Amino acid sequence: MQFDLVITGGTIATASDTFAADIGITGGKIAALGTGLQGADTIDAAGKLVLPGGIEAHCHIAQESATGGMTADDYRSGSISAAFGGNSSFVPFAAQHRGMGVTETLDLYDSRAEGASVIDYGYHLIIADPTENALRDELPAAFARGVTSFKVFMTYDLMKIDDGQFLDILSTARDHGALTMVHAENSGIIRWITDRLMAGGHTAPRYHAISHPAAAEAEAINRAITLARFVDAPLMIVHVSTPEGADLVARARLEGAKIFGETCAQYLMLTRDDLDRPGMEGAKFMCSPPLRDRATQDALWRHLQVGTFSVFSSDHAPYRFDDSGKLAKGPDAPFKVIANGMPGIALRLPMLFSEGVAKGRLTINQFVALTATNQAKLFGMHPTKGTIAIGSDGDIAIWDPTKTRTVTLADQHDNMDYTPFEGMELTGWPVTVLSRGERIVDAGELVAKPGRGRFIKRAPADFTGYPGSHTPELDPTLNFGADIARGRRT
Amino acid sequence: MQFDLVITGGTIATASDTFAADIGITGGKIAALGTGLQGADTIDAAGKLVLPGGIEAHCHIAQESATGGMTADDYRSGSISAAFGGNSSFVPFAAQHRGMGVTETLDLYDSRAEGASVIDYGYHLIIADPTENALRDELPAAFARGVTSFKVFMTYDLMKIDDGQFLDILSTARDHGALTMVHAENSGIIRWITDRLMAGGHTAPRYHAISHPAAAEAEAINRAITLARFVDAPLMIVHVSTPEGADLVARARLEGAKIFGETCAQYLMLTRDDLDRPGMEGAKFMCSPPLRDRATQDALWRHLQVGTFSVFSSDHAPYRFDDSGKLAKGPDAPFKVIANGMPGIALRLPMLFSEGVAKGRLTINQFVALTATNQAKLFGMHPTKGTIAIGSDGDIAIWDPTKTRTVTLADQHDNMDYTPFEGMELTGWPVTVLSRGERIVDAGELVAKPGRGRFIKRAPADFTGYPGSHTPELDPTLNFGADIARGRRT
Amino acid sequence: MQFDLVITGGTIATASDTFAADIGITGGKIAALGTGLQGADTIDAAGKLVLPGGIEAHCHIAQESATGGMTADDYRSGSISAAFGGNSSFVPFAAQHRGMGVTETLDLYDSRAEGASVIDYGYHLIIADPTENALRDELPAAFARGVTSFKVFMTYDLMKIDDGQFLDILSTARDHGALTMVHAENSGIIRWITDRLMAGGHTAPRYHAISHPAAAEAEAINRAITLARFVDAPLMIVHVSTPEGADLVARARLEGAKIFGETCAQYLMLTRDDLDRPGMEGAKFMCSPPLRDRATQDALWRHLQVGTFSVFSSDHAPYRFDDSGKLAKGPDAPFKVIANGMPGIALRLPMLFSEGVAKGRLTINQFVALTATNQAKLFGMHPTKGTIAIGSDGDIAIWDPTKTRTVTLADQHDNMDYTPFEGMELTGWPVTVLSRGERIVDAGELVAKPGRGRFIKRAPADFTGYPGSHTPELDPTLNFGADIARGRRT
Amino acid sequence: MQFDLVITGGTIATASDTFAADIGITGGKIAALGTGLQGADTIDAAGKLVLPGGIEAHCHIAQESATGGMTADDYRSGSISAAFGGNSSFVPFAAQHRGMGVTETLDLYDSRAEGASVIDYGYHLIIADPTENALRDELPAAFARGVTSFKVFMTYDLMKIDDGQFLDILSTARDHGALTMVHAENSGIIRWITDRLMAGGHTAPRYHAISHPAAAEAEAINRAITLARFVDAPLMIVHVSTPEGADLVARARLEGAKIFGETCAQYLMLTRDDLDRPGMEGAKFMCSPPLRDRATQDALWRHLQVGTFSVFSSDHAPYRFDDSGKLAKGPDAPFKVIANGMPGIALRLPMLFSEGVAKGRLTINQFVALTATNQAKLFGMHPTKGTIAIGSDGDIAIWDPTKTRTVTLADQHDNMDYTPFEGMELTGWPVTVLSRGERIVDAGELVAKPGRGRFIKRAPADFTGYPGSHTPELDPTLNFGADIARGRRT
Repeated sequence: MQFDLVITGGTIATASDTFAADIGITGGKIAALGTGLQGADTIDAAGKLVLPGGIEAHCHIAQESATGGMTADDYRSGSISAAFGGNSSFVPFAAQHRGMGVTETLDLYDSRAEGASVIDYGYHLIIADPTENALRDELPAAFARGVTSFKVFMTYDLMKIDDGQFLDILSTARDHGALTMVHAENSGIIRWITDRLMAGGHTAPRYHAISHPAAAEAEAINRAITLARFVDAPLMIVHVSTPEGADLVARARLEGAKIFGETCAQYLMLTRDDLDRPGMEGAKFMCSPPLRDRATQDALWRHLQVGTFSVFSSDHAPYRFDDSGKLAKGPDAPFKVIANGMPGIALRLPMLFSEGVAKGRLTINQFVALTATNQAKLFGMHPTKGTIAIGSDGDIAIWDPTKTRTVTLADQHDNMDYTPFEGMELTGWPVTVLSRGERIVDAGELVAKPGRGRFIKRAPADFTGYPGSHTPELDPTLNFGADIARGRRT
Repeated sequence: MQFDLVITGGTIATASDTFAADIGITGGKIAALGTGLQGADTIDAAGKLVLPGGIEAHCHIAQESATGGMTADDYRSGSISAAFGGNSSFVPFAAQHRGMGVTETLDLYDSRAEGASVIDYGYHLIIADPTENALRDELPAAFARGVTSFKVFMTYDLMKIDDGQFLDILSTARDHGALTMVHAENSGIIRWITDRLMAGGHTAPRYHAISHPAAAEAEAINRAITLARFVDAPLMIVHVSTPEGADLVARARLEGAKIFGETCAQYLMLTRDDLDRPGMEGAKFMCSPPLRDRATQDALWRHLQVGTFSVFSSDHAPYRFDDSGKLAKGPDAPFKVIANGMPGIALRLPMLFSEGVAKGRLTINQFVALTATNQAKLFGMHPTKGTIAIGSDGDIAIWDPTKTRTVTLADQHDNMDYTPFEGMELTGWPVTVLSRGERIVDAGELVAKPGRGRFIKRAPADFTGYPGSHTPELDPTLNFGADIARGRRT
Repeated sequence: MQFDLVITGGTIATASDTFAADIGITGGKIAALGTGLQGADTIDAAGKLVLPGGIEAHCHIAQESATGGMTADDYRSGSISAAFGGNSSFVPFAAQHRGMGVTETLDLYDSRAEGASVIDYGYHLIIADPTENALRDELPAAFARGVTSFKVFMTYDLMKIDDGQFLDILSTARDHGALTMVHAENSGIIRWITDRLMAGGHTAPRYHAISHPAAAEAEAINRAITLARFVDAPLMIVHVSTPEGADLVARARLEGAKIFGETCAQYLMLTRDDLDRPGMEGAKFMCSPPLRDRATQDALWRHLQVGTFSVFSSDHAPYRFDDSGKLAKGPDAPFKVIANGMPGIALRLPMLFSEGVAKGRLTINQFVALTATNQAKLFGMHPTKGTIAIGSDGDIAIWDPTKTRTVTLADQHDNMDYTPFEGMELTGWPVTVLSRGERIVDAGELVAKPGRGRFIKRAPADFTGYPGSHTPELDPTLNFGADIARGRRT
Repeated sequence: MQFDLVITGGTIATASDTFAADIGITGGKIAALGTGLQGADTIDAAGKLVLPGGIEAHCHIAQESATGGMTADDYRSGSISAAFGGNSSFVPFAAQHRGMGVTETLDLYDSRAEGASVIDYGYHLIIADPTENALRDELPAAFARGVTSFKVFMTYDLMKIDDGQFLDILSTARDHGALTMVHAENSGIIRWITDRLMAGGHTAPRYHAISHPAAAEAEAINRAITLARFVDAPLMIVHVSTPEGADLVARARLEGAKIFGETCAQYLMLTRDDLDRPGMEGAKFMCSPPLRDRATQDALWRHLQVGTFSVFSSDHAPYRFDDSGKLAKGPDAPFKVIANGMPGIALRLPMLFSEGVAKGRLTINQFVALTATNQAKLFGMHPTKGTIAIGSDGDIAIWDPTKTRTVTLADQHDNMDYTPFEGMELTGWPVTVLSRGERIVDAGELVAKPGRGRFIKRAPADFTGYPGSHTPELDPTLNFGADIARGRRT
C-alpha cells in the first residue's frame, strides 16, 4: 500500500505510550502505524519525536479586550504564530458582549476566521449576557453548530455574570454535555483594593499584582466549584495561578467532581518581580490573574505533574506595547486601565518541553496529554484531534528534542512588538508541523496558505468515568434540588 | 459587713470553675464570695446552681422583618420572656433599612426599648446601606454611643450587601475593635432554586429547606471568612446550621483567624422533617438557614463541645401563625413570601441545659461560657456582665437542676400563639433570675417592672490572644494590601 | 506485507485512545496498525474490543501461606486460570521466609514456574528477612536477574518487618529504581483485639473482620507512607480496603509523593456480611484486610475513577474449603488460624468490565490502564507488555462486550472447590487471549501448552514526572537526612 | 470575720475572668473574695497580678535517665526551684523500669519525695513494663493511691512499649478515668538515621536534631492517636515540637477525640541553631524531641493561642554539663550517648509571661489556663488546685507584671551548672508564692522548709463535655471492637 505521506524513523509519543514506528497518512488521516511504510511523500524523522500537533485551547484572537481595543493578532497572524509553535489547531474565544446575540456573535467570529486561519479552529463561546432567549434557543443552536464549550467571567465589569446566571449557564451546558470554563476572581475584592490603591496614588503596573490577591482567586474558585457541583455540571477553572486555587481544584477532583484545571505558561516562567521593571515596562507583564512568586511556580509545577491541571495553555492575549494596546490610555495610565494579557501562543509548547520534558519534570506522555490529548477530549475533538491513532487527523508536530535556541522577538510570527519571554534559552523545538497530513510549517518557513484551516464542528465531551459531582454528602437536598432543576422530579 | 442581698448555699459555676459559696451583692454589684455572708435580704440556693444570668445575643425584637411586618414581641414582652428563660440581659438588633441613617436607626430603637425592657439591653446594628457618610461618620458615632457590634446579610434582597460593601464594613469595624456578624447564605443559589421550585409549583413550606441548601451556607461562609481575613477583621458567623459551615469556622479558628461561630437551639432540637407537617403547619418551622437533619444535629453538638461555636443563641424571630405573621400573605402563600423565624428566647437556656448538661454532653462550665460569658466577652460587656466575679453586675440565674417540666404554649410569656418546642420534656429550669441584684423573675412570677432595664453602653471586644488572621501564607500581598487599606503603608 | 497474524475489524483501546484498526503481528510482536492488513492467519474481531492482555500483578501461586500450607494453584493451573480471565501475563510472589536467602528463594520459584506456565511471568520478591547480606549483595543480584519489585508485610508474625528494616528495604529499592509493595495493617492492633475476641469465645469467621479494623489499615498506611517519603522511595500500598487508607494514598500523591495504590476485586464486589454466612461458610470470604461494607465499596469505586489506585488486582490466594486449605485446622477452628485469601484470578477482569465499563463507571481506557498498562509501567515491562503499540508483544485479549454469563464454579479453571463470586451475572467476557501473538485461550478452550510462558526479565520502573517525595515542608531535616542516607552529603 | 491571711488590692485572674478583689485565706483554703477583707496577716498586692500558683506537670526529679545517670535535682532542689519560678505544686515522674513493680516504683519515689519537697507534689507513673500483674492489680492500686496519670514511651530502647502494650495501658487507664501521656517519636526512624550518622562519623551534638526528624514525631503522634481513639481512651501528647504533630492533635480534638497536647518552653524560646554551638556546647541544648526552627516556633505559638495545647511545661530534665551528666561518657562522646534534656522549671512561667502575656500574644487568662488550671483539671486536682475560688487551696503566685530581669545562672536555685536561657531579658516575675496559704518564696528568699510539701492524692479527670473519641466514621467495627474490649458486648 502506498500512502500519501509517510513519516519514517521517528519516535512516536501518545498520552500513554512511546514507541518507534513509521506513520502512513492518506487523505489527511492517519492510516497506518508500522515499519517500512511507503509513501508518495516522505518525512525523515530519525532522531525526532513525532507528537500529536498541539491544540491551543486558550487564546484571544481578533477579539475586543475587556478595556476596549482589539487584540493585535487576527486569525491569520494568530494561526501562523500557533503553527510555528507546534500547534495544528486552536480554539480561540468568540466573545458575546452585552446586547449581542449568541448567533450574531458566532457569525461575527466566523467572518473573522474564515479564509484567514492556516490551522483548524473552533471557538469557546464567551457568554456575557445570558438572556432567556440565549439560554433557551441560542445556546442549543450553538451546540448544533459545533460550539460545545463556554466561558464565563466572575470579574470585569463588562463581562461578569452573577451567581444565578452562572447556574443558568452551567445547567444549560450540562444538559448538552458541554464544558463551561470560568475566569475565577472575586470582583469585589479586586475593586475594593484597586479603589484604595488609586486613592493612594499607587498606580504603577506593580500594583496590579497587589490588586489581584490570591485570596480573590481562591474565593472565586471555591464559589465556582460549589455552583458547578450544585447542578452536577462539568467546569474548567482556567489560568489557575495560586497554590490555594490549585488545591481546591485537586480536592474537588478527588471527591469525584467533574472539575478541571488549566494553568498557563507565564505563571510557571515569570514572577511578579517582572512587574517591578522600571517605568511602564512592567505593563508588558500584566495579566489577570497576575504573575505570582517562585513558591507558586513550584506548586504549579507539582500540580501539573500530579494531574490537577488537565490543560496547559498560553492565554495568548496580544496587546502591543504602544497606543494600540498597553499604552492606549497614555504613557502614564494607571494599571487599572491598561489592557491585561501577554503573547505566548508560539512559545507555550517549547517552554513546556524545555522546562518540563528536557529538565525531567514531565514525561513526554504527560507533555502530549497536557498540550493536545486532554484538550481534544475535554473539548469534543477526540480522537479526530489530539492523538496519533488510526483514523485520526494527520495533525502532527515533529520535534527535535536537542535543538537549542534563544527566544527573541525577531523570531516571532505574531503581530506583537515584544515577547515577555525574550532571552529564554530553550531546548527542544518543533521542526515540522502538519495539519491533516499537510505540511504547514517546515524548516522554519510557513508552507501553507492562510485560509486552509477549517472550522472544527466539535462534539460534546464524554464525562464517563467521573463519579458524578452531586455530592450527596454535601447536602441531602442537593440531588433533590438538582433533579428538580432538571425537571426529573417534583 | 452586711450586703444588700446574699445568695446562700448554692453551687456557683463560672466558665472555668465550679464551687460552693455564698454571694454578697451590694449596690447591684457582686461584692463578695465566701461563706456565712449576711445580707438584708437572702435567697437560699441550697441544692441549686448559681449561674451568671444568660445573655441572649441573637433575637429580633420590635423589628420589621425582611418580608415586611413587625415581630410579635416588643421590648416589653421580649424582655419578660427572656427573663423567664434565665436571661439577665439581651442584645437585639437595631435594623437599618436602605435610605435610613445609622443614627436615625439607633434613635428609633432607643425609642422602642426605653421604658419597656425589664432587663438590660444593647443593640447589634444591622447595616443594609453602608453609604460613605455611614462609614465615615455614623459608625464612629455608633461606637461612641456603645453600639460595638454590627450585622450584615449576604442574602435577602432588601438587606444584602455586596462583597465590596462587606469589606468596607469589616475594615471600619476592625479599626474600632468592633465585631461584625454575618448571615451567610449565597443569595444567587437560593434565588435560582426558588425560582425553579416556584415554576414547578413546589410552594409548600417543606420546599423552603430545599431552596436553602447546605451548599449555599458553606459557600457564603467561605466567602465571608475570606473577606474578613483579607482585612484582618474579626467576624462571627451566626446561626451556623451545617457541618460544612461549622468545619470552615473550625478550620479558620485553628489557623488563628478571629472567626467566631454561633449556632441556635432549633438546629439542635428540630429537623427539616418538621417542615413536612400537614398543610401550613410546616410554616411554623421555617427559619433561615433552615432546619436540617439528625446527622447535622450530631455534628453541631460536637462543634458546641469542641469550641467551634462560642455562642449559643435562640434567633428568636417571633411571627405569629396568623395574618399578622406567617400567614400575612394568605393561608396558601408560597414559602418564599412567608416570614422566616421562630420564637425561642425563653427556652434557649432550658433546652441547652436539659439536652446538654443534664444528658452529660456539656459541663456546666461550657454551658455558662456558651450562654453568657462568651457573649459578654465578644460583645464588650465583660466582666460587668456574663460572669460571677467581684465587681460584676449582680446578673444571676438560680437554677434547679432537677426540676422537670414539659414545654407548653401556655407557659410562655411572649406574644406568640405557638411554640415549635411544644411537648419537649426538659430537666433543669431557672427558678430565680436577678438583674443588677434585683429579682426579676421569682417562683414563676415576674417581680420587676418593665422599663427598669438599662441600655448597656458596650466597649469594644478584646481580641488579644488571637494570632491575627492576616494569613501571610494565603498571599504575600495580603499584609501589604491590608496595610494599604489601613493607611499604614504605601 | 504479509503478517503472521492479523486481527481485523475490532475496536482497539489503549490507556489513552480508542479507535478502529486491524493489528498485524509478526514474530510475536505488534508490527502494524492500519486497515486492510493481510496475514497468514486472521482473527475476525468485528464487534469486539481488542485490548492489551491483562497483567495480574497480585496473586499467590505455588506459595506457602502465612499460616503454613500451600496454595491450591501452581504455575500451571494458576496461569491457565489467569489466561481464561483475559490475562496474557502475571507476576506472582516469590516469598522469602526467614532463614532463606534471596537467591535461594528466586531459584526455588524458578523451579516452580519453569515448564508450567502458559503465560509470561515474573515475581515480586517478598522480603521477610532483610539481612545485611540480603541488602548488600542479594537484592542487587535479584535486580540484575530482572526481579525489580519487592513486597513487605507490616503484619503476620512470620513475615513482618519492623520500621527500621522497612527503611533498609525502601532505601535499597530506591537506589535501584525498584518499587516496593506493602501489606499495611497494624500488627499490634490486630493481635490485641484478636486476643480479646479469642478470650471471649468469639472465634467464628465473622470476627475476622472485627479483628482487622479500618484503623489498623489506616495507621499502617500512614506509617508506610511516612517511611517511604522519609527516604524518597516509591511505594505501592496493596489491597487498600478502606476509605481512610485510600484518602491517605490520594493525599500523598497530590503532594507529589511516589505513592501508588492498589485495590482488589473482592473489596468492590463483596462485603463483610458475607462473613456472616452460617457455620464455617464465612471462612470462604476471609481475606486480609477483610471485606468491609457498602459505603466502602462506593468510596473505593470513586478512588478507582479518580486515579488514586493505579492497579486493580485479584489477590488470588487459593485455599480450598477442605482440610488442605481453609479447614486445615479442623472444622471448628477459630478464625485466627484459618488461611486468609480467596480465588479470583479468572474473574478480576470480567468483574471490572461488567461492573465498571458496562455500567458506565469507567471508560474502556481506564479499564485498560487499571488492568494492564499501569502494571506494565510500574513493574518495568512497558511498552513490551501492557499496551497495543508498534513493537510491543502481541499480548492481546479480545473481548465480546455484550456477552453475558453467570459465574459458576464449574466454569473455573483453577484448582479450587468454590468461588466467592458464584452466581454473579457479568456482561463482557474475553473470548480470545493471545500471548506474544499466539492464541492461548480461544472459544472457551485452552489452546496452548503449559510451559510456553517465559520469565519476564523486568526493568526498573521510570518515575520521571513525579515531583519527588522528599517533602521539605514536612521536615527541614529530611533532605539532609535522606542525603546522608544516600551518602551524598555529610 | 478575720482571715488568717488577706491579699489586698491585687488584680486576680482565673482561666476565665480578671477582676480586682481581696482574697481571704483561712486554714490554707481560700475563704473569701471581696473588698475590705481583714486578716491576721496581710500581703499588699496593689499593682500586682494575683494568679493561681503554677503547676509544673512535666519535670524529671530524682529520676534515672534513659541513658543511666540521675537527674541533678532531687525533690528538695527541684521543688525550691519550681517555687522560685511561681509554682505551688508539681507532678514529676515516678519511673518504672523493666523488672520493677509498680508499687515498688511508687514506694521508691515516695521515699525520694517525702520530707524533701517545699511544695505539694504527685507523680505521673511511667510504665515501661506492663506485665499482666501490673495491669490487673498494680495499676488499680496506684489509682487508689491517687496516682491517676500514666506516661509511656514509644522510643528509647529501655523504656519503649509496643502498640499492643500501649493498647493495654490505654484501655486500663480509660476504665479508671486516668489520663495517659506519651512521648511520641518513631523509634525505628531515629535508630535508622542514627546508625547512618554514626557510621558516617556525624557524632556532634548538632546531628541529634537530624536524627530525630519531624517525620518521626508526626508518625508516632498519628499512631498514638489512632490507638487511643481505637479504645476511646484519653491521651496527652507531651512535648509536641512540630507543626505536623500539633496539627494532628488539633484535628483529633476537632473531631471530638479526648486528645490533649502539651508543648514546652524550649521549643518556643530556642532553635536547633543552638545545637551548632562550638565543641560540646551544643550538648547543653540537646533534648528529645529536639529543638526545631523559627517557623516551628511561630506555629507552636499559634497552637498555644488557639487551644491545641492544653498544657505548657518545662520538661525540666537537669543533667549537668559535667561528668555527672551530659559529659558522663566523655568529652567527645557521640550525641547518641549524651543524656537528653535541659533545665527550665524556674523559668517556664516567667518566659511564657514575658513572651506571651507581656508581648500581647496571650491574655492573662490563657496564661493561667495553660500553666495551672488545665493541669489541675486534666490531672485530677481541680478545683483544689489550679484556680482561685472559694474552697480552693491557697496556692497563689503574686506577679509583678512590670519587673524586668535578665536570666543568669547565678539567679537559679536548682543544682545545675548552666541554663540554656542565659541572657534572656524577661518582663514579669513572681514576687511572692504561696502554698496552702503559706508563703514559700517571698522577695527573692525561700521562706518555707523543705518537707512541708504534701503528696496530692489525685482524683480521676472528668472528661464530660467531650463527644467521645470512638469515631464510628473511622470504622464501623470500632464501637464493636471497643465494646468487646470493655466486655460490654459479644
